[in-house]
Amino acid sequence: MSRVAYVDGQYLPHRSAAVHIDDRGYQFADGVYEVMAVVGGSLLDEGPHLIRLAKSLAELQIPAPMTNAALRVVMREAIRRNGVRDGIVYLQVTRGVAARDHAFPKAARPMLVVTSRRRSPADPRAVDNRVAIITIPGIRWQRCDIKSVALLPNVLRKQRAKEAGAFEAWQVDREGKVGEGTSTNAWIVTLDGTVVTRQADSAILNGVTRLAVLDIIRREGYAFVERPFSVAEAKSAREAFLTSTVVDLLPVVRIDGAAVGSGEPRPLSRKLRECHLAPAASKK
Amino acid sequence: MSRVAYVDGQYLPHRSAAVHIDDRGYQFADGVYEVMAVVGGSLLDEGPHLIRLAKSLAELQIPAPMTNAALRVVMREAIRRNGVRDGIVYLQVTRGVAARDHAFPKAARPMLVVTSRRRSPADPRAVDNRVAIITIPGIRWQRCDIKSVALLPNVLRKQRAKEAGAFEAWQVDREGKVGEGTSTNAWIVTLDGTVVTRQADSAILNGVTRLAVLDIIRREGYAFVERPFSVAEAKSAREAFLTSTVVDLLPVVRIDGAAVGSGEPRPLSRKLRECHLAPAASKK
Repeated sequence: MSRVAYVDGQYLPHRSAAVHIDDRGYQFADGVYEVMAVVGGSLLDEGPHLIRLAKSLAELQIPAPMTNAALRVVMREAIRRNGVRDGIVYLQVTRGVAARDHAFPKAARPMLVVTSRRRSPADPRAVDNRVAIITIPGIRWQRCDIKSVALLPNVLRKQRAKEAGAFEAWQVDREGKVGEGTSTNAWIVTLDGTVVTRQADSAILNGVTRLAVLDIIRREGYAFVERPFSVAEAKSAREAFLTSTVVDLLPVVRIDGAAVGSGEPRPLSRKLRECHLAPAASKK
Repeated sequence: MSRVAYVDGQYLPHRSAAVHIDDRGYQFADGVYEVMAVVGGSLLDEGPHLIRLAKSLAELQIPAPMTNAALRVVMREAIRRNGVRDGIVYLQVTRGVAARDHAFPKAARPMLVVTSRRRSPADPRAVDNRVAIITIPGIRWQRCDIKSVALLPNVLRKQRAKEAGAFEAWQVDREGKVGEGTSTNAWIVTLDGTVVTRQADSAILNGVTRLAVLDIIRREGYAFVERPFSVAEAKSAREAFLTSTVVDLLPVVRIDGAAVGSGEPRPLSRKLRECHLAPAASKK
């Protein structure tokens, strides 16, 4: 089965799917995106992703390229045409094509691209996959709450993590506090069992999986607080983990080379991941 | 004459010139660019632009897509095919096309796009064009010395300027100092006649026109210092101006609505612009 991509009204062979060189996404990073998980044929957390997409577009004053109802149809068609049962949907909206000039063009029409691809399913048992992270000074802009495609700083930090043999880089602000990873939110569980993650201000992206995990925490009655935490706190935590649509929830077992917590079995990380994936997994 | 664009080895009709949806420039702003002025058929400051391009590529560890000699040929061909005598050349290099993943892909090949278009020539007499600017808190990342296409913050700030009836927005750091505009460097002339512009650290882009104007200042023996200056200093300056490849040098006559200096004739702004454009203009 050849891959197919939706580009501005057409379903095209993925290998020849293209956007104009004057697309403002290409020239100015003037666009936003979402990544959604497909689990057992269903989109996970579709509603919250569409709400966040609308928020990002509104922040940039980019009109929605179509209604949510139409977008839901396009995403399902992309899933179907690519034969995806477990995988992801990627969608990107840019301000459109216009002669190059920084300010918003008068007549641009937003451009939508939607792709879908298979990947191994997010299996609740995969909580035994553990990751190492590094901490690194943050260099990003001050509106990280907008899910824009201006991702170059994240690319550079993720590359540094990879070169250090780690999965992710937790970005640290001027006050020594952890913001988030390059494509994941950052969490710790303190020695007294309180779950801590940074409040969703303009320094971090308010992850959809972050929100879903916070819902579970509230529902299950675990102690939690949204506040910045320091690198030292993270290193002395009982557990640490990260969340994103793509990885769901992964325990962090090493920070800057040092082991986190007392080792297995990291009960809270495991429990939260199971709870988040359970509804989707039960549909299989 | 239909416009023609160079895209990864081919000269294509501009209207159908495209890059793949998996180009990392489009998905991650993982690329760099240069804009060069064409004055009387010649590229202005071509050498310094190519040096800066090499620096930007090196910072991102993107290999050069071709030798400088080959790039000079492509730019001249783009100028010729588009019938440009006075205008600009735009070139963009991205890390290439790869399946979406933040870290550098193993096998990507850098992608080069070169375009050229006409515009009215940068006429030394146009120094009588004056501009108003606003000042605004900066929100950009911390590596503004890299000429990357992650320009969304600049887009948002330029739009704010436009909506305020101004040409440009001078971005102010946490210490209240002016960094630069969104696509131009910022300068003032103090009451004692000293030219001041911020030193080229990682907070600003070291503009090629900035460097050329500094050369003229040194050659002509004007007093100058490279240091940050405050908004208040700018508002009480004798002259203020901005520089870029696209606008060359333009006097700033209003800052946040207040007049700068004692009005005409802004002798130093005029003199510096004439000196910079004189060599190119004399070739006409």
